[in-house]
Amino acid sequence: MASEFDIIRRYFTRPVKRALLGVGDDCALIAPEPDTLLALSTDMLVEGRHFLAGADAVKLGHKSLAVNLSDLAAMGAAPRYATLALSLPDADETWLAQFTRGVFKLADTFDVELVGGDITRGPRNISITVLGAVPPELALRRDGAKVGDEVWLSGCTGDAALALAHLNAQVRLTDAALAHCLARLHTPVPCIALGLALRGLASSAIDVSDGLVADLGHIGERSGVALELRYAALPRSRAIQACADERLAQECLLAGGDDYELVFTASPDARGRVASVAADLGLALTRIGAVSAGEPGLVSVRDTDGELMALERKGFDHFR
Amino acid sequence: MASEFDIIRRYFTRPVKRALLGVGDDCALIAPEPDTLLALSTDMLVEGRHFLAGADAVKLGHKSLAVNLSDLAAMGAAPRYATLALSLPDADETWLAQFTRGVFKLADTFDVELVGGDITRGPRNISITVLGAVPPELALRRDGAKVGDEVWLSGCTGDAALALAHLNAQVRLTDAALAHCLARLHTPVPCIALGLALRGLASSAIDVSDGLVADLGHIGERSGVALELRYAALPRSRAIQACADERLAQECLLAGGDDYELVFTASPDARGRVASVAADLGLALTRIGAVSAGEPGLVSVRDTDGELMALERKGFDHFR
Repeated sequence: MASEFDIIRRYFTRPVKRALLGVGDDCALIAPEPDTLLALSTDMLVEGRHFLAGADAVKLGHKSLAVNLSDLAAMGAAPRYATLALSLPDADETWLAQFTRGVFKLADTFDVELVGGDITRGPRNISITVLGAVPPELALRRDGAKVGDEVWLSGCTGDAALALAHLNAQVRLTDAALAHCLARLHTPVPCIALGLALRGLASSAIDVSDGLVADLGHIGERSGVALELRYAALPRSRAIQACADERLAQECLLAGGDDYELVFTASPDARGRVASVAADLGLALTRIGAVSAGEPGLVSVRDTDGELMALERKGFDHFR
Repeated sequence: MASEFDIIRRYFTRPVKRALLGVGDDCALIAPEPDTLLALSTDMLVEGRHFLAGADAVKLGHKSLAVNLSDLAAMGAAPRYATLALSLPDADETWLAQFTRGVFKLADTFDVELVGGDITRGPRNISITVLGAVPPELALRRDGAKVGDEVWLSGCTGDAALALAHLNAQVRLTDAALAHCLARLHTPVPCIALGLALRGLASSAIDVSDGLVADLGHIGERSGVALELRYAALPRSRAIQACADERLAQECLLAGGDDYELVFTASPDARGRVASVAADLGLALTRIGAVSAGEPGLVSVRDTDGELMALERKGFDHFR
């Protein structure tokens, strides 16, 4: 059987690019970039919680890195380095080859260098830490939203949650809709280019991982503002449009999570620049609401009649 | 029950010190230090593998950070930041309060700032990433050992493994010896000051986590040299000295692991400076062998008669 060190050599070690020292020493060594802050984020994915036993290993490798890169996108940071800690029930080399293929393919797409990590035996668990670079003053923090700002969303929310609803037999999607939603669930693409384009433009940003309303709540709390969404303004994918169960569609749109879109605030003066970013990147950016002076962190949603909607569920919480 | 976000607020969030932005955004933000490299390391600890279910949570918090800081020590890096990803079977607040007490007490001792992380539900798993600072050219890499260098060890090895042997009923320690060995097993102290003092002095270094012979093998592989230890030169704690089972003592000394001492190489010309470091820090630093021109990565151990000893086990491997 392959040893821990064989595995590291065979599947995780590649020549260094930007780093001064990569996998294989006590630490990796990286050089600071002048006039640049390091953005640092960690996410952990657990079997049975974030992914099912038997999940496609290539896609799992992709997603494990993607959800971390999404945090860099939400900060307006350019990806640089990653470390990967992995707990595995066995040294299944087919799985390792597929998993690392998924990781490295996405890493190459976004020019991320894997510089270190750890591998151990135990219940399957993937913990990735990413480092990115962002000029001072241009980071897209959560605490910059101002009353009067408008709320924007990239792409649309709900597809990943709709895929899960199908898998849980809550809804029956067409083959085409299912394929689309499963791709959104298993191989999300982090909005790196959008994050970079929003530097100096968005007043705050977050990636939609727990659910749109919950994540906007984090912006509200940190910025000391309330936010109001217009339900009718929320963009809908074809799969969500085709969903006959409007209550399910609503829950997916507002509280589904696992979307990895960016939701951000910007001054009304910035509308033209936001439209230019959308055109330049070929992305849909939709104005879905506004920042108001209500209770900090409160996110309310109004229906087409302007009435407040009651939300049963706002987002995902691992301990509730 | 406390929500994920309550838990993060209550147990993991403290005012930032050195960081520009800490826990509570998509990423932490840190400023680079001029003329300084960042050293980066990640370790994962799994219940049932690295610690037992029911392990004292304060000590577990200490050890989880300590094993990571030990990697910074082995690189000669000064600790700066950490992120912590945690998977827990439940939101047990007593456990969380104790665990974070252990983490933060050690973090304060070594001036490490917890700037981010993740918390999720699942089998208990702790993954920490640490960042440290080291001037260029002074990092204690594994690949700098040269033929003719001498091999040095801080403190002594074997106590943690001897504690495990007692817990597994392979040996019966006295109460005093057990208390000493358990402390070495559960609350190792990373050799940060030694790592800093060895900058520019050691030609290579590694921390002893997998076992003395195995870890020296990593230096040998990376440096393209062989290493030869004199068994009689290995320092022995009182607990190891009192161990009647010489075969067990030998295994603990050479292959026990979990020691978190530093083993390093230095030129014979540096003997006086190494002695000064030992005196300044009040540490035992013992010359235990030499670097030779044999098969890269080969570590041999000679007994008092100069004969090569047969080693049954060299160290810990998670997949063998």
